[in-house]
Amino acid sequence: MDTRFNDTPPASIDGIMQRSWAAFQTFRKRPASDRAMLLREIATGIEALGDALISTAMRETNLPEARLRNERGRTIFQLTSYADACERGDWMDIRIDTAIPERNPPKPDVRKMMVPLGPVVVYGSSNFPFAYSTAGGDTACAFAAGCSVVVKAHPAHPETSTLVAEAIMAAALRCGLPEDVLIHVYGISHETGKALVTHPHTKAVGFTGSYTAGKTIFDWANGRPSPIPVFAEMGSVNPVFLLPEKLASDAVIIARDCASSITLGTGQFCTNPGLIIGVEGPHLDKFTEALGDFVGETSPSRMLHPGIASAFREKMGLALTQKGMRPVTTREASDDGMLGTPAIATVDGASFLRNPLLHQEVFGPFSIVVRCRDMEEMLQVATQMEGQLTGTVMGTLDDVRNHSEMISVIQGFCGRFILNTVPTGVEVCLSMHHGGPFPASTDSRFTSVGADGIKRFARPIAWQNWPNELLPDELKNDNPLGMMRTVNNEPSTDIIEG
Amino acid sequence: MDTRFNDTPPASIDGIMQRSWAAFQTFRKRPASDRAMLLREIATGIEALGDALISTAMRETNLPEARLRNERGRTIFQLTSYADACERGDWMDIRIDTAIPERNPPKPDVRKMMVPLGPVVVYGSSNFPFAYSTAGGDTACAFAAGCSVVVKAHPAHPETSTLVAEAIMAAALRCGLPEDVLIHVYGISHETGKALVTHPHTKAVGFTGSYTAGKTIFDWANGRPSPIPVFAEMGSVNPVFLLPEKLASDAVIIARDCASSITLGTGQFCTNPGLIIGVEGPHLDKFTEALGDFVGETSPSRMLHPGIASAFREKMGLALTQKGMRPVTTREASDDGMLGTPAIATVDGASFLRNPLLHQEVFGPFSIVVRCRDMEEMLQVATQMEGQLTGTVMGTLDDVRNHSEMISVIQGFCGRFILNTVPTGVEVCLSMHHGGPFPASTDSRFTSVGADGIKRFARPIAWQNWPNELLPDELKNDNPLGMMRTVNNEPSTDIIEG
Repeated sequence: MDTRFNDTPPASIDGIMQRSWAAFQTFRKRPASDRAMLLREIATGIEALGDALISTAMRETNLPEARLRNERGRTIFQLTSYADACERGDWMDIRIDTAIPERNPPKPDVRKMMVPLGPVVVYGSSNFPFAYSTAGGDTACAFAAGCSVVVKAHPAHPETSTLVAEAIMAAALRCGLPEDVLIHVYGISHETGKALVTHPHTKAVGFTGSYTAGKTIFDWANGRPSPIPVFAEMGSVNPVFLLPEKLASDAVIIARDCASSITLGTGQFCTNPGLIIGVEGPHLDKFTEALGDFVGETSPSRMLHPGIASAFREKMGLALTQKGMRPVTTREASDDGMLGTPAIATVDGASFLRNPLLHQEVFGPFSIVVRCRDMEEMLQVATQMEGQLTGTVMGTLDDVRNHSEMISVIQGFCGRFILNTVPTGVEVCLSMHHGGPFPASTDSRFTSVGADGIKRFARPIAWQNWPNELLPDELKNDNPLGMMRTVNNEPSTDIIEG
Repeated sequence: MDTRFNDTPPASIDGIMQRSWAAFQTFRKRPASDRAMLLREIATGIEALGDALISTAMRETNLPEARLRNERGRTIFQLTSYADACERGDWMDIRIDTAIPERNPPKPDVRKMMVPLGPVVVYGSSNFPFAYSTAGGDTACAFAAGCSVVVKAHPAHPETSTLVAEAIMAAALRCGLPEDVLIHVYGISHETGKALVTHPHTKAVGFTGSYTAGKTIFDWANGRPSPIPVFAEMGSVNPVFLLPEKLASDAVIIARDCASSITLGTGQFCTNPGLIIGVEGPHLDKFTEALGDFVGETSPSRMLHPGIASAFREKMGLALTQKGMRPVTTREASDDGMLGTPAIATVDGASFLRNPLLHQEVFGPFSIVVRCRDMEEMLQVATQMEGQLTGTVMGTLDDVRNHSEMISVIQGFCGRFILNTVPTGVEVCLSMHHGGPFPASTDSRFTSVGADGIKRFARPIAWQNWPNELLPDELKNDNPLGMMRTVNNEPSTDIIEG
């Protein structure tokens, strides 16, 4: 029996967090350029793992080679682009107000920037073994902020996680940093997780996964004597609203795009569109039939791990037994329990509105078309939506103009607001917002994708009345790092006259 | 009996929050310029209340006229400067990444800015009847963000609060906004507060006051089916660390400055320095004696309300009975129970380190001088500090250089990091950070003073693939509002080629 990945005992967590705290004390004093160097070295180290990393991840996750190579590329891009952002410093929100000694009372010199929170615990996800795991966005953002990181390996890919963790620790040593800026632990027990989240040295948590696990962590964190922030991205049903003019003109094209989005990666994306809402009639019938055909033609593929595969079957099965639900696709589930067979069902708006179970995410390639009686019922459906990562509108210009109330309600519940394209595919860029009102994530004010995610692991400090030579470089008069700063209310990269 | 300020019944809170939600639906669609106009109109309205407002506040709070006139000026400055900041838009963190259709896969157009969270419940403080109350920083920030506000009047000054609330509602009407952008409620019962905080339409809470009340609100908010952020500023002991070279040269000057800071406003400031820490010896003795003399010479003044006056006596009395504590000032408390008699005590470092009670805030004009055996014990004291609004160092350049570990520890527990000046006096400017690690505030990442406080009541949304004409003005290609935006990773006010 493979004992390498046995649970890290809860009793050892205290020692681990002490080590992480000690590493943080060194790391927090290093300049942003050193943090950026670490991120770039990690990228190099992951690249150097070569095919061994890909084949290990294929074996552990059932994800196809091309997808994993893409995801590795994305992970490397995250690391290097966050390194650039770390040095550019947008995320630091530097504000400087210079003294006015002659004012009565005298105005003091006050200068503000972000400092790291402290050791961050990261729970990787099963569906992104690279990009949202050990060296994923949470870890990259925490390092960019200057925090040490303790990663709890996802139990579905501990070997992949270990390879990446070793690459991170080697990169730290190459940068002259303590190896303990990353500590890798294993655990499937609540005890290990709880010991990590509730340890006094833990200052924040990043998590990607289920609502149940994310909410448990959130409650642990808020029940501490000294509560800490939790950034849990807990998935979403990502509703797609079909407005009438657009549906009338493009039913089959939208159906094709939605079918790709639903079945992509065996539906195992947090931005998978789980609900598609339209007004009943011939256009929606045409859309639904086409969607069923496209999805029905898609070959089933293997899911990430047995737990996800069985949860998919169970939740879909339960959804299909609800009042008003009718299957659109007819393919029977395969005997191979690991296969996720793509499926579409439909339900009338009234039944949907009455049944909260149908509002819940079924993680996998399954979506429900909601047939509303009229636009008013569609507005009711939109109004009932819980917080979502994304809200998608399929509409013409006139649709959007004619249904402004609907547009406003959709905007109100989502973090990313999409027009005429599918929600899967989260671009890694500064303008991305990946997060949404609860329960999509525990803190809608922060993103887990894009370099603004660095802000999750930092807090501002205002320095008052410090002489120039004792200030951090970011705040010095001569702006040695050349950063954009807001000086006396004006954005500027200028030198301040001392 | 005056029944005007009876508790708003908990059963009426649902109707109130429905009205606030409806007002929010109108207000959120109005441009930033309209929000700024509202803030400026409120400032005008408060000014127009004239002497009646000052005399009412004097009667309700026991604060002297000059202080209240100053505070009114500060409140008006907050409103107008946040109006400017609202329009300037720094707080919106606008990020634009333009499409690259020829990339494989095509890069989408993504544009991000802040949108308001929804109705905000504001609990005003007793010690700032204007600046942290009905039209104080929380309300001003919430309006700037585009949120409607429900203010729970502080029971110590309901009439002052009512005058201000009426001025706000009148200002809203003058701006063509629904009067319900502000709803004013009264309540001292937990039931009223809990009904407000746990109502589904409440999207955030701003609070200034005691740890006990703030933590209760925080727990209510996190126990909701859909948790919401709470920005509770819960006070602090604001430790002042006397480094040796500075103490040797400036003992009496520092004592004089500290004495003013301790007794200012009868010690009723959240930034009041409650602990002063030095290494025992003749310099600290000289400092302590001078501090005792200065403080002992200060006339007692009336405290805000009987509850605060009796809590001050009780907590100070309890502190004075702790092992190792010795009074420095000798004046007996007055027979007038409303008077806060300024007092200083001293304790040895070992007794302090062993006794958590001495680490707690005594709200009022009372401070403890902690006599450490040596710098190592002083470092232990610093290491034991809980989160603080401020951390102050009295030190020469050499002191700071020679005690870098101490400096690093102090920085680690505070939100504002001060050199050679006292912590009272919170400048209202963009670089201010008023907040600190728990328990100083419930969210160290946000400030309650300065225009960055607007960010507390907003969240980002990313618009993906929207045509220019359907985007908010802030995100449009031609930048009609002339805002600073980060476009393709570069800060810019330029027009984007469409």
